[in-house]
Parts: sequence; structure tokens; C-alpha cells
Amino acid sequence: MEERSNNYQKLLWIKRIITLAFGILIWYLPIPWDITPDAWHLFAIFITAIIGVLLEALSIFTASVIALVAVVLLRVLPPEKAFSGFSESFILLILAAFLVAKGIIKSGLGRRIAFLLIRRFGKSTLNLGYCLVITDTIIGPSIPSNTARSGIMYPITHALSLDTGSLPTPEGRKRTGTYLMMTYIAGQTISSALWLTGMAANPVGVGIAAKFGVNMNFGNWVFVASVPCIIALIAIPFVLYKLFPPEIKYTPEAPEMARKGLQEMGPMSTQEWIMGSTFLGMILLWAFSPVLNINLAIVAFLGLSILILANIYTIEDIRQGGGDALETYIWFAILYMMSTALNDMGFMKILGAQLSTYISDYNWVTVYILLTVLYIVIHYLFVSQTAHLLALYAVFLQVAVNAEVPAALMAFMLSFATNLFAAITPQASSSNILFVGSGFLPSKDIYYQGAVVTVLNTVIFLLATPWIMWASSL
Amino acid sequence: MEERSNNYQKLLWIKRIITLAFGILIWYLPIPWDITPDAWHLFAIFITAIIGVLLEALSIFTASVIALVAVVLLRVLPPEKAFSGFSESFILLILAAFLVAKGIIKSGLGRRIAFLLIRRFGKSTLNLGYCLVITDTIIGPSIPSNTARSGIMYPITHALSLDTGSLPTPEGRKRTGTYLMMTYIAGQTISSALWLTGMAANPVGVGIAAKFGVNMNFGNWVFVASVPCIIALIAIPFVLYKLFPPEIKYTPEAPEMARKGLQEMGPMSTQEWIMGSTFLGMILLWAFSPVLNINLAIVAFLGLSILILANIYTIEDIRQGGGDALETYIWFAILYMMSTALNDMGFMKILGAQLSTYISDYNWVTVYILLTVLYIVIHYLFVSQTAHLLALYAVFLQVAVNAEVPAALMAFMLSFATNLFAAITPQASSSNILFVGSGFLPSKDIYYQGAVVTVLNTVIFLLATPWIMWASSL
Repeated sequence: MEERSNNYQKLLWIKRIITLAFGILIWYLPIPWDITPDAWHLFAIFITAIIGVLLEALSIFTASVIALVAVVLLRVLPPEKAFSGFSESFILLILAAFLVAKGIIKSGLGRRIAFLLIRRFGKSTLNLGYCLVITDTIIGPSIPSNTARSGIMYPITHALSLDTGSLPTPEGRKRTGTYLMMTYIAGQTISSALWLTGMAANPVGVGIAAKFGVNMNFGNWVFVASVPCIIALIAIPFVLYKLFPPEIKYTPEAPEMARKGLQEMGPMSTQEWIMGSTFLGMILLWAFSPVLNINLAIVAFLGLSILILANIYTIEDIRQGGGDALETYIWFAILYMMSTALNDMGFMKILGAQLSTYISDYNWVTVYILLTVLYIVIHYLFVSQTAHLLALYAVFLQVAVNAEVPAALMAFMLSFATNLFAAITPQASSSNILFVGSGFLPSKDIYYQGAVVTVLNTVIFLLATPWIMWASSL
Repeated sequence: MEERSNNYQKLLWIKRIITLAFGILIWYLPIPWDITPDAWHLFAIFITAIIGVLLEALSIFTASVIALVAVVLLRVLPPEKAFSGFSESFILLILAAFLVAKGIIKSGLGRRIAFLLIRRFGKSTLNLGYCLVITDTIIGPSIPSNTARSGIMYPITHALSLDTGSLPTPEGRKRTGTYLMMTYIAGQTISSALWLTGMAANPVGVGIAAKFGVNMNFGNWVFVASVPCIIALIAIPFVLYKLFPPEIKYTPEAPEMARKGLQEMGPMSTQEWIMGSTFLGMILLWAFSPVLNINLAIVAFLGLSILILANIYTIEDIRQGGGDALETYIWFAILYMMSTALNDMGFMKILGAQLSTYISDYNWVTVYILLTVLYIVIHYLFVSQTAHLLALYAVFLQVAVNAEVPAALMAFMLSFATNLFAAITPQASSSNILFVGSGFLPSKDIYYQGAVVTVLNTVIFLLATPWIMWASSL
């Protein structure tokens, strides 16, 4: 045991030295194209952090904090800029939603909802996976922020994992938790692609596409998206189930146990009623936030205030149990800041433009496929779907149009791709973060399973090209 | 018990309704002078939050979060502005220092330092109080950020509280913890006033005073400050000891127990060595940060990175035990933002100018005394010593000079007062925050004991006026 632990420590430090060496190498590499030295150095730090996580040399938190220190000490960014992620509105949304989710679990409401779902769908874990994905697809068009939607679905998925016997430990999470959570975030890539209002950046893409003469609206979007999305929605829970099976698969007794559990819980307690009303109020405010012009994070903080006032989730609960929320908040704020700064420095645009020009000499079908794949793969460098779309959508669409790819086809494909790449890394979408913070879904699982899901989605959507072409031309 | 708890709940909600009514009243009051409606409304929310805490209707965390929600929902400030405190450099310094402090405790180093102090000074709790205050006074001139200094002294004070038998619970903290922590933050008002380089804003005051023809430098500052500071340094630990006595006063056996404890600990472990070197490195970097131009928060994050890499303070420790750091970080970021915004909107300046003109008709001695008292009392509205000084120092000095108060006297007094008011509220100085977050020092204790300390300090410094006048005229 001692020796094994020593070997583990040795291996860990070898990986850390490799990561450091990699970082130093990138730092001193001749800078390609017209990227500024600061942007290149920021890229070196950022990619080193990502590599450190991929190699399991560092946890995502450690990698992020070290990257923050490096960015400031090496004078790549001024401190104010380096700290800017901490006050980013949707990062605070994640923080507050994380705490509210704990209230939902603690009040018993999470358990009740989980039991209700298990009673109905709980015979198999696969069923529950479909149940989560379908629920998210149904509420998709009315909650345009996928981060807010994850704030709604995370406590339910969390309760479902716990109440099917899973625990956020290396052993316990394999039972159902990892599967359910991965299925949810994989499914969300599709529920967001299906609806124009399923993700905050979708309408932004519509605006850019309009400049290329492509008309997208709620109706033709869902029509074009329908075929590949339905196939993907059916495929994802099943493929994950087959490739990364949950340890608990069939639980024919689960519905009966859930029924008993509900009986034991009795009628809803006052706490549950308050929690339920607060949660419903939050969902409504999130759904109507574009009309009411209410900040999404403030809705979550409002919910949190009510829970604290009503003694459902207390200060003591935060003091005792808020550490995981803090950990998640810190690393995400840092990674987001680095990716945003890279973008602001023009790095992403230069990289995207340079890479896509290498492609432009082929025939249009090849160009279309390569651009789609490149657009998705490059998301390894991004920590925001919107930033990615803003940086690269127009550039890629222009290259495609120059190479005579039909504009509508490419525009729709890029719009869909902006959702498909959301499961490629833990930080690929802010809607993943609550799940990453849960303890049920380690970073390396997301990297690995996320890659599989992204390949699957990409293949499905590329194979659906004839449909997309036909439907978008109507 | 049930009934008592019901009564407590009833009283709590009565207090909350009073707080709300107070807030609504202020909101709708006719706006005095030429304050803008937004500034007035922000003031209404801010002062209501403070009142809520004073009445014990709300915890400081709850009051802050509700205030944040109110500020955004009532459209007093845009969300970006309302969230700006979260990325403020010295607030992140507190967050990171909080986590490093946990590492110092966990590594055993905190315990060792505490035992060493107890072995030497542990016969009485009063001795330990003096020991903390004197240590801070000695390191004062070389660590110009009192927040960084609190990051050094907090883990030591924390370990000292634990190892003298105190606990961060309502019962346990009365033993020694509350006394030691309050004594430290009260003592820091003096250790910061004694040295020109004892607090970050002191040199800023020197710059402003120079415009009024007052010459302040390291030498004449410490000379002028010496008499009142030495008296206050002697008085504070003693007065707090008499008025708010720790339950454990004399422990003649403590030095012997500490000696045994040290024997049991044996020689310093590898973890302690790494922790000690890291901590020493942090102290040196903090001390030389003005020369090296290193951000203070980054120094703390660097220390945190090393602790995590060396497995001294782990991710698991953050997940399990970082909740109190999160709670502290959130409320302080919000209160700081509100006070800063009030300041930016000109509210503080208008208030200060208007109130001080009411004073200006008296003879110069009265004007001098009233201005000093007003300058200190108005700090109830501030969450930063530097902001207060920037907003009001010049205004007050101008009023004083117009009323023929000797400029040097008033300048020195305002400079000292900028340090004296640091214990008036929990949020009065960023250097208090770690102690507030410890669980040993409830907000209401700081409000009450801090008021006593501030009155005591003010009286001592006012009585020392002849000395200050003479010494500053040399």
C-alpha cells in the first residue's frame, strides 16, 4: 500500500514535470502568424493548464489557480483583468444555483421529485437517462439560458443519483451518478440545438447568418434540426449506457421502493412547499427574464435569500457545505477569464482564420466537413459557447461561402455545432459546471466520454447533411 | 424549549419587519441636498442592511445577499456594477489568505507557533492579548497592507484560540477566542496608526496633506504618533479584558502543557517545513510587494498553489471546509461594492461636506474635535479605509483650515483617525474580515466592543492633542 502510494506520487510528479516542460516549450516556441507575444504567452499558460488536467497531473482547480498565478506573475495580464472572471454574471449564476440546489436536496423536495420519477421510470437506469434528456428537451425552448436550465435540472439529477443508491465517491458514483449526469450534459447539447431559443447564443448566430442572406426563425430552425436531433436524442443515452455502463442497470424493485419512500415522506412539508414555490418562481423568472429584463444570477440570489430567510438552507449549511461551490466557482472563473482574454486579444480569430484557409482549396463538400470538424475541435480552447460563436462563426461562414458551400447549410451546421461541442470538456459550457462540481462526474470522465459523445453527434449531424440542405432551402 | 424557539422566531420576524419598514421609509424620504435619486436609493438599501445586522434581524451574509438582490431588481445599479466587488483584488486576497490560514492550522505549524507563544506568555490570557498586539506592532512598518498583515496574524490567533481551549461555537468562543481576536483587530487600529507604512492608505493621506503645506514623513509620523499610540496599545488589551473578560483568564499550567505539547509534536515535520517556508516566502513577498510590484492576492494564491501541490491543504479540504471562506467572501464583496458605489456617486462627499459645514462656525478647538468625531462616526457607512480617506480627508482638512485649526494637527489627526475607525464595524477594514469569518467573533460583538474601542481610542488621541500639536510643529 505504502509502496503503491509512493509509486503513485512518483508518477504524479513525473506528469507534473512533463506538464511544466510542455508549458515552457510552448512559451518559447516561435510565435506563428501575427499573434502578439502576450496572446501567445497566455495561450501557452492556458493550454498547459488544460494538458495538466488531461494528463491528470493536476486537478482542474489546481491547474486553474496555478495558471492564474502564472498569468499575473509573468505579467501576461494585469491583475484586474486576471480577476475579472470572478464578477462575471453567469459565473455567479452558477455559484448561486449551486447553493440553491443544495437547498432543494436538503428540503426533501429533490428526494420527492426523484421518487416520483423513479416510481414512473425507475425500472432501469437507462429509462431514467431518457427521462432526464426528454425533460430538458421539453423545457428547452422556454428557458433560453442553458446555464439556468442546468440550474433547474442539476438538483433533480443529483437527487436521482442519490436515491438510486449512488454516492459522490470514486466507488459510489459509478453506480448510477456518473451515467445520469453525463447523459444529462450530453443530452443538453441536443436539447439546445433543437430550439432557436434553447441556448442564449443561438439567436446571435441567427443575426450573423442574416448578413449572409440566410433566414433562420423559430419555425425553420426546429424543422431543420428535428431529424438529426431526434436521432441524437435517441442515440446518446443508449450509447453512453453501452460504452460506459452504470453499475446498477435494472432495478425492477425501484418503483415499488420509491412508492414506499413517498408514503414514508407523507404529504409535502412546509419546507418543501416553500422550496417548491421558490423554485417554481425561479423557473418562471428565468423563463421570462428576456421580457422582464432580469439578470439570471440575481434570480438565483433571490431564491437563495428566500431559502435562508425561511431557514430551509441556512448560513450554517453554507459554512459547513459550501466548499465545493467555492472550488467550482474559482476554477471556472479563472478558466473563463483566460479563454475570454485569448479571444479579446484576437488569438482565437487569427487561429480560426489561419486554420480555415488551409482548408479552403478543396471541393465544397470537403470544405464543409472539415470546417465543421475544425469548428468543433477548436472548442477545446474555449470556455464559453457565445464567445466561440462570436469569434469564429462569421469567419468560418465566410470561408465556406467563398468555397461555394451553400450558405444556409453551413450557417445551420455552425449553429448546431455551437451546441454540439458543449460536452467536449468540463468547461466547454457553463451548463456543465454544476455537474462537474457535484463529485459524481470527474473531469477525466467528461474529457473521455465527452469526446465520444461529440464524435457521435458530429457524425449524426454530418450524415444528416442532405436533410439539413433540403430543409434549410425551403 | 419549543415555546422559547417559537418566541425567538416571532421576535426575529418582528425585527425583520421593522428593518423592512425602516428601509422603505428611508427609500421614500425626501432626498436631501443635491444627492441623486440612485445614490439615495443605494444608501437606503445599504443602511437598511447595516440596521438589519445591528438589530440581529439578519446575519451579515443574509443582509448582504438581500441587498445585492434589491440593488439590481430595483434598478439602482446595473448587474455588472453590482457584481464588481467579487473581482476586487484585495477581496480575493482575503479569500486566498483564508484558505492558506486553514493550511497553516492543518499542517500543525499553527499549533507549534501557538505552543511556543503559550510556553512563553501563556500564564494569562491577557498576556497573550498583549503578545498579539505587540507582534503586530513590530511587523507593522514592514507589511504596509494591514489586510496582508491580518493574513499573517489570523492563523496564529486562530491556533492560539484553539490551543487555549476555545472553540468557534457560541459557548466555546467565550473562553479565549473572542477576546484574543477582538484584541488583535482593536490593536491593529493602533499598530497601523503608529507607522506611516503601517497601512496602505497612510501614504495617500501624506500626499493630500502635502497640498495643505503639511510635511509628513516616516520619522515625524512615528514621533507624533508615539505618545497616543503607546498609551492606546497599553490600554486596549486591558480594557477589553476588563469589560469583556474571557472565561479563561489564568492558566498557570498552560506553559507547562505547551512544553509537553511541543515535546509530543517532536521535531518539525516535512509538512510543517514546507508550510513554514511557504508562509515565510509569502510574508517576504508581501513585505517587498511595493518594490517588486507584485499583486498581494497573487502572493496568497501562489502560497495556496504550493500547499495544494505539496498535499498540505488539498482540494478535498477546500470542498469539505471552504464554506466559511465562501460565506465571508460573498458578504464582504457585496458590502464593499455598495460602499464603493455610494462613494463613486458622490454621496459620501456630499454628506461629509454638508455635515462638516454645520460645524465650521464654532471656535477652532470645537471644530477640530467635532470634525475628528464626525470623520470617525461616518465610517459606519464605509467598507474601505482608503475609500473613506480619498472621499473625505481633503474635504475635512479644508473645513478645518478655514476654521483656523492648525493644518498639521488636523492632518495628523485625520490620518490617525483613518486607522482608529477600523474596528467600528465588522466590515470597517478588510483586515477584520478573516477574524469575522472565523466563527470566534460574531458581528454583534464587533459592533459593540468595536464601538467601545473606538471611543477609547478617540478619547486617548484627542487628549493627546497638545502632544500632537507640539510634535507636529517641530
